[in-house]
Amino acid sequence: MNVLKKIKGPNDIKKLEPEEVILLSNEIREFLINKLSKTGGHIASNLGVVELTIALHLICDFPKDKIIWDVGHQSYTHKILTGRADGFDNLRQFGGMSGFPKRSESDCDVFDTGHSTTSISAALGMAWAREMRGEDYKVIAVIGDGSMTGGMSFEALNNASEFKKNLIIVLNDNEMSISKNVGGLSENLSKMRTSDNYIGLKEDVMHSLEKIPVYGDRIIHQIQKTKSGIKSLVIQGMMYEEMGIMYLGPIDGHDINAMVKVLGEASHVQGPVIVHVRTKKGKGFIPAERHPSRFHGAGPFDVEKGLPLKGSKATYTDVFSTVMRKMGDRDRDVVAITAAMADGVGLKRFSNMFPDRFFDVGIAEQHAVTFAAGLATQGFKPIFAVYSSFLQRAYDQLLHDVCMQKLHVVFAVDRAGLVGADGMTHHGAFDVSYLSEMPNMVVMAPKNKWELSDMVKFALKYDGPIAIRYPRGEAFSKYKEFRAPVELGKCEEIFEGKDVMLFALGSMFKNAIEVGKLMKEDDRQPTIVNARFAKPLDEEYLIGSMNKYKCIVTLEDNIYTGGMGERVKSILFDNGYKGEIINISLPDEFVEHGSVDKLQESLHMDPKSIYDKIKEATV
Amino acid sequence: MNVLKKIKGPNDIKKLEPEEVILLSNEIREFLINKLSKTGGHIASNLGVVELTIALHLICDFPKDKIIWDVGHQSYTHKILTGRADGFDNLRQFGGMSGFPKRSESDCDVFDTGHSTTSISAALGMAWAREMRGEDYKVIAVIGDGSMTGGMSFEALNNASEFKKNLIIVLNDNEMSISKNVGGLSENLSKMRTSDNYIGLKEDVMHSLEKIPVYGDRIIHQIQKTKSGIKSLVIQGMMYEEMGIMYLGPIDGHDINAMVKVLGEASHVQGPVIVHVRTKKGKGFIPAERHPSRFHGAGPFDVEKGLPLKGSKATYTDVFSTVMRKMGDRDRDVVAITAAMADGVGLKRFSNMFPDRFFDVGIAEQHAVTFAAGLATQGFKPIFAVYSSFLQRAYDQLLHDVCMQKLHVVFAVDRAGLVGADGMTHHGAFDVSYLSEMPNMVVMAPKNKWELSDMVKFALKYDGPIAIRYPRGEAFSKYKEFRAPVELGKCEEIFEGKDVMLFALGSMFKNAIEVGKLMKEDDRQPTIVNARFAKPLDEEYLIGSMNKYKCIVTLEDNIYTGGMGERVKSILFDNGYKGEIINISLPDEFVEHGSVDKLQESLHMDPKSIYDKIKEATV
Repeated sequence: MNVLKKIKGPNDIKKLEPEEVILLSNEIREFLINKLSKTGGHIASNLGVVELTIALHLICDFPKDKIIWDVGHQSYTHKILTGRADGFDNLRQFGGMSGFPKRSESDCDVFDTGHSTTSISAALGMAWAREMRGEDYKVIAVIGDGSMTGGMSFEALNNASEFKKNLIIVLNDNEMSISKNVGGLSENLSKMRTSDNYIGLKEDVMHSLEKIPVYGDRIIHQIQKTKSGIKSLVIQGMMYEEMGIMYLGPIDGHDINAMVKVLGEASHVQGPVIVHVRTKKGKGFIPAERHPSRFHGAGPFDVEKGLPLKGSKATYTDVFSTVMRKMGDRDRDVVAITAAMADGVGLKRFSNMFPDRFFDVGIAEQHAVTFAAGLATQGFKPIFAVYSSFLQRAYDQLLHDVCMQKLHVVFAVDRAGLVGADGMTHHGAFDVSYLSEMPNMVVMAPKNKWELSDMVKFALKYDGPIAIRYPRGEAFSKYKEFRAPVELGKCEEIFEGKDVMLFALGSMFKNAIEVGKLMKEDDRQPTIVNARFAKPLDEEYLIGSMNKYKCIVTLEDNIYTGGMGERVKSILFDNGYKGEIINISLPDEFVEHGSVDKLQESLHMDPKSIYDKIKEATV
Repeated sequence: MNVLKKIKGPNDIKKLEPEEVILLSNEIREFLINKLSKTGGHIASNLGVVELTIALHLICDFPKDKIIWDVGHQSYTHKILTGRADGFDNLRQFGGMSGFPKRSESDCDVFDTGHSTTSISAALGMAWAREMRGEDYKVIAVIGDGSMTGGMSFEALNNASEFKKNLIIVLNDNEMSISKNVGGLSENLSKMRTSDNYIGLKEDVMHSLEKIPVYGDRIIHQIQKTKSGIKSLVIQGMMYEEMGIMYLGPIDGHDINAMVKVLGEASHVQGPVIVHVRTKKGKGFIPAERHPSRFHGAGPFDVEKGLPLKGSKATYTDVFSTVMRKMGDRDRDVVAITAAMADGVGLKRFSNMFPDRFFDVGIAEQHAVTFAAGLATQGFKPIFAVYSSFLQRAYDQLLHDVCMQKLHVVFAVDRAGLVGADGMTHHGAFDVSYLSEMPNMVVMAPKNKWELSDMVKFALKYDGPIAIRYPRGEAFSKYKEFRAPVELGKCEEIFEGKDVMLFALGSMFKNAIEVGKLMKEDDRQPTIVNARFAKPLDEEYLIGSMNKYKCIVTLEDNIYTGGMGERVKSILFDNGYKGEIINISLPDEFVEHGSVDKLQESLHMDPKSIYDKIKEATV
């Protein structure tokens, strides 16, 4: 690490000798593999952009120049080169460095990201700001080919085409987003990748055209008539050029000198320019090159073996995967949809077994939902499996295209609640609220893995919009003995006690059980209820039993506003409940990264904190 | 109306003689102008697609074939041709026919629309459903050029490019969406429009190429090397062809025969095909041709004069328009953003006065919000003015890009609450809920027009995400004497009374006043409070004064879940309030179209109904 240790802050890289820069890339790679093997993190995407980031830092002056990292999980080398190498010991851990760009962490991070497809919009805003102020700095969006399938990037490009000043968009093309890339854009990029070097070709063709004499008159005439004809003939990045955006590339994204040269040229373009860079995910670490999905957002791993350290226990995603294969087999009307996350949401095996009824629509949550609505109008039973925080992208489509027509679309909302290391941008903290406010929507959450399976089956039988939310990570596998049929809007009382009722939604059932154990130590026995439905709530049960309790505790890993707890409180008040209500929920703030246990403690949602609140309320 | 009266139901048009079809288009136009002059409606867009709709009906078999009308406000001729001409007497009126496609209205309406950019996604879902079932029917999306700038249409096209069976996308290009179209796509379409007839050109070029002998070898070789070279050379719809979607056009959208021919050809394409049709908004009615914006969603008008009937009173939008010009003048950091609605949201005059600080980003709400976030990071004060129901499109961008970074972006949320004739898809029924659930967001609503002005000024001084919601239509212009400075999170007590407190948000303040008048007739004097802030709520005031009242009534034109009323109730309960709480809010269902007064009555939100509830609660 002789070179790396010379990098103490922004712009230090420019003091290096050219041969040191090459050494630096190797050292960064080694550093990342070593550090991430201990903490986990987004290894594949970061190994892919080591040279690209170095090239960007060689042409930029920080913090004056501004790089917006789309999604942001590929910003590790940027963090190292801006003096944050020390942060990697506690990467993504509670209180430690974030795995994403954070303005609060460094003035070299100019826009917080986490979700895909936002970078060009933000960059255009900054570039316009620069022009309006008459200032002079570079604005560069770095965006993956997967993110380019998101509609928002198209909206941004369409708008950017009117911008007549410099704006660099680095298209980091690694031939896949998280899953394999899909759609027409992907084919288009693939063509570019396989074509001969664009710049040489362009020169060749121009030269040829100049030399054609009168003989080719008619064709020249036609070319001129079409106006964009010549451009069309020779330029690979046609789709972008047609939108009025210059295209340069493709360039080898592991050749620092080539990138520095083209990025330098791009800096002089008056208008938006796409620099198409080809990179390889996981570059330099064979296991990650071979299995980039496994090394997407990975836990700690064994460097030698290239395998995860922890023996992985069955997750809710695994359970969903299994039940989907069963249901796919049982009912030919079941179709599954993912927005570029077949692996992540557990649809990989469904896609192998039922390729004709599986749709990967790209990073395109809006389209995914309305596409599902279209399928539902014709009697199919689409299941859109998606992370809670990404489903936020399709709020209007849920409301306007599914709920308004009361169409039977099933939403398998994975990563609901706290997700841990990915933090703020990825916590599924809002879905109970935003789904519950939609007329006709049903919102469920299972207490354990068997109930997830039962709820998927229930959802497929139901006729209308229906969502099942479940958390990231290990599926709770206790209380199999409590496996009663799922009934619309009915909760289930698991343990009958007295004085205190714990009314828990989904993953918080486990916390309720733990609270019950703590209370038992004090010879107290609470009633523990599995809410099952956040909407419609089991009002009948609540009203019928409320007066038996001095204290009713609602538990959910969702914000309070619009959530289950607020609704329970409202019902209890309307029906004259005079006891105490304690609402355990996520706070009205964005929650940091860290292990779920640590976060729950810090938010006073852990069993001990909950019991402390109960004790205080029931003295 | 000799021909029109022969149309009694679907497919009747096919029984007409060719010359009758031409007469029919004239009669429909006359019918629409006549009917809409009385009821109001989307006249310009409907006059533009009379011939297109006729052509579609000539090639379709209803209800087997499926047309999805993007946005849907252009579906009037479709309604006529499917036997719903009688419905135009009560168009968009309470209990009358909807101005949009409704599956509940006819089996020839296959997908409910209202918001833009959903049609291709829904159509692709239906087309896949057809293939999976092995059925045979046409699926046709009809989408405007404006909607094509929405990212969701790009997501859908990208996904559609993998579909290998017939799917027709009619691009209805009227050279503008609601405002003038913007961006690279628009320029691209403009090029197509001005080019020579595509099909002829294509044949010419092909022919020329075939005849070129060895002389042009090198160029031919280059063309072959680029693979898509020939296609690039001759096809105008390059952007779409590059995505793998066939392009046919442009075709005169008022030439029925030409359209029938090309649509017939399009029906045999194995894959998605864009049929580019050029139409003129307002066609055949000169005032609407000249002022399509005025005749977008118009009220009743004088056919002879071509002018609206009602003398229009100042709307909240007008007030916003005025204050924006002032603020633009006063502060050079103020920038305004619209998503293709400069007229609708009242930014037209700002755009004329400050063209360098005005951004029309196209129908692209997602991009608009994150673009604003980018501007805000550099110290500008962006105001995004947008209709409440369209801002739903940017839920994740609000949360992830603005609120998470606590950026100072102002949201001027127009058309909040019930909007009247546009109905279900356009009511701004959810914004208080979805905005309030976002950490760091401030949500305000003014009681009258002066307060809107004051709130805009307050919002520009505030430093963080902040929204002002105000309704469609006439601005409330009473109680100017109550013009106290806006303070963050502070309500204002307007009238002090006893027993009953009316705690009203924004436009419902007017209802509270009316309730107060009714109560006065019974010698009762309620306290009337202007809530001002839905978030943060004035908890201090509520807690400090609650025990003076037997009954506290919250009034808002937003749904209950996640809204202000639910939050007030929660606070009152937590602080031991023992009286009655009445929550006046929109129901947990999608509300129909009709005048706001009629709708309020039907929803028991009108002053009399509210007072009835108070009487019942305070006996």
